[in-house]
Amino acid sequence: MNVGERHYRTIWLSDDKRSVEIIDQRWLPHEFRIEKIGTVAGIATAIRDMWVRGAPLIGVTAAYGVAIQMTEDASDEALDAVWETLHKTRPTAINLRWALDEMRRHLKPLAPERRAEAAYRRAAEIADEDVGLNRAIGENGLAIIKEIAAKKPGETVNILTHCNAGWLATVDYGTATAPIYLATEAGIPVHVYVDETRPRNQGAQLTAWEMAGHGVPHTLIVDNAGGHLMQHGDIDMVIVGTDRTTANGDVCNKIGTYLKALAAADNDVPFYVALPSPTIDWTVADGLAEIPIEERASDEVSLVWGRTADGKIAQVRVSPDATPAANPAFDVTPARLVTGLITERGVAKASREGLKAMFPERG
Amino acid sequence: MNVGERHYRTIWLSDDKRSVEIIDQRWLPHEFRIEKIGTVAGIATAIRDMWVRGAPLIGVTAAYGVAIQMTEDASDEALDAVWETLHKTRPTAINLRWALDEMRRHLKPLAPERRAEAAYRRAAEIADEDVGLNRAIGENGLAIIKEIAAKKPGETVNILTHCNAGWLATVDYGTATAPIYLATEAGIPVHVYVDETRPRNQGAQLTAWEMAGHGVPHTLIVDNAGGHLMQHGDIDMVIVGTDRTTANGDVCNKIGTYLKALAAADNDVPFYVALPSPTIDWTVADGLAEIPIEERASDEVSLVWGRTADGKIAQVRVSPDATPAANPAFDVTPARLVTGLITERGVAKASREGLKAMFPERG
Repeated sequence: MNVGERHYRTIWLSDDKRSVEIIDQRWLPHEFRIEKIGTVAGIATAIRDMWVRGAPLIGVTAAYGVAIQMTEDASDEALDAVWETLHKTRPTAINLRWALDEMRRHLKPLAPERRAEAAYRRAAEIADEDVGLNRAIGENGLAIIKEIAAKKPGETVNILTHCNAGWLATVDYGTATAPIYLATEAGIPVHVYVDETRPRNQGAQLTAWEMAGHGVPHTLIVDNAGGHLMQHGDIDMVIVGTDRTTANGDVCNKIGTYLKALAAADNDVPFYVALPSPTIDWTVADGLAEIPIEERASDEVSLVWGRTADGKIAQVRVSPDATPAANPAFDVTPARLVTGLITERGVAKASREGLKAMFPERG
Repeated sequence: MNVGERHYRTIWLSDDKRSVEIIDQRWLPHEFRIEKIGTVAGIATAIRDMWVRGAPLIGVTAAYGVAIQMTEDASDEALDAVWETLHKTRPTAINLRWALDEMRRHLKPLAPERRAEAAYRRAAEIADEDVGLNRAIGENGLAIIKEIAAKKPGETVNILTHCNAGWLATVDYGTATAPIYLATEAGIPVHVYVDETRPRNQGAQLTAWEMAGHGVPHTLIVDNAGGHLMQHGDIDMVIVGTDRTTANGDVCNKIGTYLKALAAADNDVPFYVALPSPTIDWTVADGLAEIPIEERASDEVSLVWGRTADGKIAQVRVSPDATPAANPAFDVTPARLVTGLITERGVAKASREGLKAMFPERG
């Protein structure tokens, strides 16, 4: 999407047709840095040290890493080695493994001298497929926004979002943000309330930066404020992303999502979850009972990153040294609180039947 | 309560029997500083610049300010002037005005040469009355904790709290924390989950510091995490304070309280509010419709205070410069979500009938 006047994706092929350029997200929102990467080691660092993040973007970055390897040594051994090297960078990222498998599957049958060109072509396709998926989610979500807008002609549609399921986590458009960007393009007046999303502040740091860059009217709020806004009619709909959706329609997403879903239900505010269908885990039914929740480092709670008055990036401790912190990273929103699941095929009911009807080949 | 090995109140008369000493709360939790104040100007600064905060403590501090004035000039004019000077420091603080009125009412009938001694005596009484009120709330809340403890013998009672309704906001014990301190004294194993309470982080900075100082087992969490903990049975009860309770039992408290009340109701976790009866506003019925919510400065959201790695107190910006922030300071929890109101007289149902039965002279 746009950063000021110019359109960017999160990753693109450099003019030399060999390196890639990425937005180094570690410095957002305080600095907008683009890095050119032309080695496998550079790609590995960018993934491991979170210059890029978000499952789809990690996958595409790894695919280009394989392509770069093919320009240097396109042997079977080199192909296996780059798979290993890049898979190690973030071993639990499901899209990373998928993209590496896909590249190897695609390249193995080819003669080594044809692999480099084919690799760049396939990496570009994977990137475009992600954009297409998100655009389709966007179109389906846009229909909902249009319905709400039709009920309050001339007025702004207020949307609450949590965490960053934005274009920075994908190649472009994002998932939860895709309907918002398409609504903006369609001239529908939208305004986004951005939950800061403690402890890592992805809302304040990334979603707010996206909105500011693309010129979407938005307001940052603390995670505590959404319920109050809903009580006073200030939110027309909630759209969030998800890390994993169960076959029953339970939604595992960033910690705090459940609280917003409760407030939405209590105030008759529709609560939507935007997701590409590959994030549906058809092997899991009851999200609360079956999904293990990652417990992350307590320093993410005790320390807050930001920019000091003199422009330095620093962290400050907000609590006593003697105070321990717990840091569950996700929670599960039961399907009963979800108005609908916005997928690339359409909006499904958050239930086994709803998902079966939308994906008959899987359910 | 205790700070390490020693018991403190938040304010006490100095050895010179003329000045007061206070905990300068601006530096908590990073530094424990005690300030001795012997002038009206010093008292005014301490209130205005929030060296002391919390309605009951502000009232007591102002009362001592009047007493200090009486040692210098105990004339009617001086009494009126100190009322004006101190009232200006935080004009919306209801206890401040009450304490100043009470001191003037008490002193006016006396001959000027008798006023200083009477003023110190009355200020000390106001302080002791606050302690007595909180202790009574503590006893009534303790009975609830004992009931929960009896159902899980030998196990820890897990209590969630939001913001700081602790001893730092009062003279001693606090309101929401009083039952916790009395349970600890009674040898009941309690553990407190402390919401950090963005944007001002009173949980992380003050409640966590209180718990650490008094040796109460506790864990800091982000405001997003409480719902998840309740879903998994990790919270036995919630106790929060309140700034204002309506005659119907609606509870106005720090922003985010409503979200925790929703989660408590959704998971059958009892949700209690601790309050001294003077904070009941008998003139207001429907909290949501009638209580105006203070909108505070957006910098409280965009900037976070804390201690840097090299020990300095600093603030860091967490969001883009171009991103505006909204900062509603309180929300209203409807009475239907409140299990009980813990007052100095007993635990009332959160309803007009419940409050009438407990306070027949007011309802």
